[in-house]
Amino acid sequence: MTIRSEQEILKIINSYFPTYSKEVIAPRGDDCCVFNGHPRMCISSDLFLEDVHFCLSYFPPSSIGYKALAVNISDILAMGGIPLGFNLSLILPPHIDINFLKQIFQGMSSLAHRFNLYLAGGDISRGEKLGIDITIWGRIEKNILCRGKAQEGDLIFITGDIGLARAGLVVLEKGFCSRGYRRAIEQHLHPDISPETGDILRNNPYISSLMDVSDGIAQDLFRLLPVHLGAEIDISLEILPEEVKEVAQRVGEPAVEFALKGGEDYVFMGTIKKEGKDYLLKDMPKAHIIGEAVEKNEIRVNGSPLKIKGFDHFNP
Amino acid sequence: MTIRSEQEILKIINSYFPTYSKEVIAPRGDDCCVFNGHPRMCISSDLFLEDVHFCLSYFPPSSIGYKALAVNISDILAMGGIPLGFNLSLILPPHIDINFLKQIFQGMSSLAHRFNLYLAGGDISRGEKLGIDITIWGRIEKNILCRGKAQEGDLIFITGDIGLARAGLVVLEKGFCSRGYRRAIEQHLHPDISPETGDILRNNPYISSLMDVSDGIAQDLFRLLPVHLGAEIDISLEILPEEVKEVAQRVGEPAVEFALKGGEDYVFMGTIKKEGKDYLLKDMPKAHIIGEAVEKNEIRVNGSPLKIKGFDHFNP
Repeated sequence: MTIRSEQEILKIINSYFPTYSKEVIAPRGDDCCVFNGHPRMCISSDLFLEDVHFCLSYFPPSSIGYKALAVNISDILAMGGIPLGFNLSLILPPHIDINFLKQIFQGMSSLAHRFNLYLAGGDISRGEKLGIDITIWGRIEKNILCRGKAQEGDLIFITGDIGLARAGLVVLEKGFCSRGYRRAIEQHLHPDISPETGDILRNNPYISSLMDVSDGIAQDLFRLLPVHLGAEIDISLEILPEEVKEVAQRVGEPAVEFALKGGEDYVFMGTIKKEGKDYLLKDMPKAHIIGEAVEKNEIRVNGSPLKIKGFDHFNP
Repeated sequence: MTIRSEQEILKIINSYFPTYSKEVIAPRGDDCCVFNGHPRMCISSDLFLEDVHFCLSYFPPSSIGYKALAVNISDILAMGGIPLGFNLSLILPPHIDINFLKQIFQGMSSLAHRFNLYLAGGDISRGEKLGIDITIWGRIEKNILCRGKAQEGDLIFITGDIGLARAGLVVLEKGFCSRGYRRAIEQHLHPDISPETGDILRNNPYISSLMDVSDGIAQDLFRLLPVHLGAEIDISLEILPEEVKEVAQRVGEPAVEFALKGGEDYVFMGTIKKEGKDYLLKDMPKAHIIGEAVEKNEIRVNGSPLKIKGFDHFNP
């Protein structure tokens, strides 16, 4: 029988591998798994594969190295962790030469240096397509920022623009002239991530839950909220970047819907107590409040039930 | 410029990523990297890829799942660690269906259960070939069993048969009738690994260095010994399994040379103080002393300098 969705695979995994362990504080299924210890450790993995996550035709090698690591760091920050080290598994096809490889490492090492991350090991193999798998770990000193911990009345926020990385991908894939889409392309190739963002999120005691938006908020909202809560989301056109609106129009999709389905933005989405709102917006001028967690089992966007879904590898 | 060897890639990696960190006790380059902490943690990654490490034509799915995890556990035991958890990154091509996937998990989870290992997370993606990347970690309670710590006069041992997994691979790849090669095939598909082996190695205070033999002892001896030492190795035909000798003869290679180049045996090779020899052989009846570390910069096997090399993905 064919595999129909990622959800189906995760269910099968849970039937073979126990989700509980006495050493585990936050089980798998969140941005990271968190283990007991001194310090408490969080760990996560992300694949970055040629012709799945990127194409060599438009993705510069230094950005491949940068982004493969950035999406992993994002998971640690989304859990409230401080990243410490990573392992790198590299699948190298014959069409990758030494110069290309050096540029991958250049992009990756500059980001590793910024976060003071230690490369602890990994594996290297031949293969037909370029592939990078990174496992990253960090320590958690304050609160663990899990999913599913929001309470009724908590505000829902995002820390940056949504839809921009998807707009960049469309521009690159469809070969639109890049002029006028600089920010969108940059967001796709080189998502911004900084130690300061991690510090701000870790130090805001009002945040009740957090995750990084990798598959579009249409999908990720269901993952963020506990099953017994829904949300009233209000996304006005004003909070969408011009480039997102333009690209949405060119592909004939309503701009808000385009942004909701936009994967790979690697901004953070979370819930926060109402009294923490001003604190957050002062620390993060690019953050937006986009809604509120409500006591009903439905997510509504701009007054209508959310039906569209984000990205699924097995049901694209 | 084309990539010519794994060694070349590792050199480039070292030029971009520092090998030193104050949090690290044993840097990358060994079976695991070891971090300070309570407990001290060791971590390692291994790729297991279709048409590189295995072919679907002869590798049963449950053995794929088993071996992908076994080769990772082997790294933790080789460092003197107790494995605790692992992350699983899975690349799934369209030709893998749900039933096949369940058998992979069945083989993997039975081994995870035996070692009481927790699956902490990972990633799943589409791809063209089946690929498994596992990152595993464990704690170290006693000595860290590094490479490169042997002293002159230490004996060199292996904990099991060498060449057997390579013989099994040849039988499977060349389509020899499997009758008579049961042990060789089993060693290739389902290398034996047990918590008891880890206990014995961890608790033998005479072991001065240790590694797992993944690329053949011809290559791995150079990795085991410190640069200033060589070795006198004595491998008699008697210690080689009959199946290795038979397969070597069928492919027209001297049996000892065939065994020296035999990758993927996943036995352990180490050095031990002379006074620990009896202790080791009593605990591990299948272990063999194969030589001695000597004060000269050369490895000699049965009286001649070792020239043959083990397996290199980039220079096969």
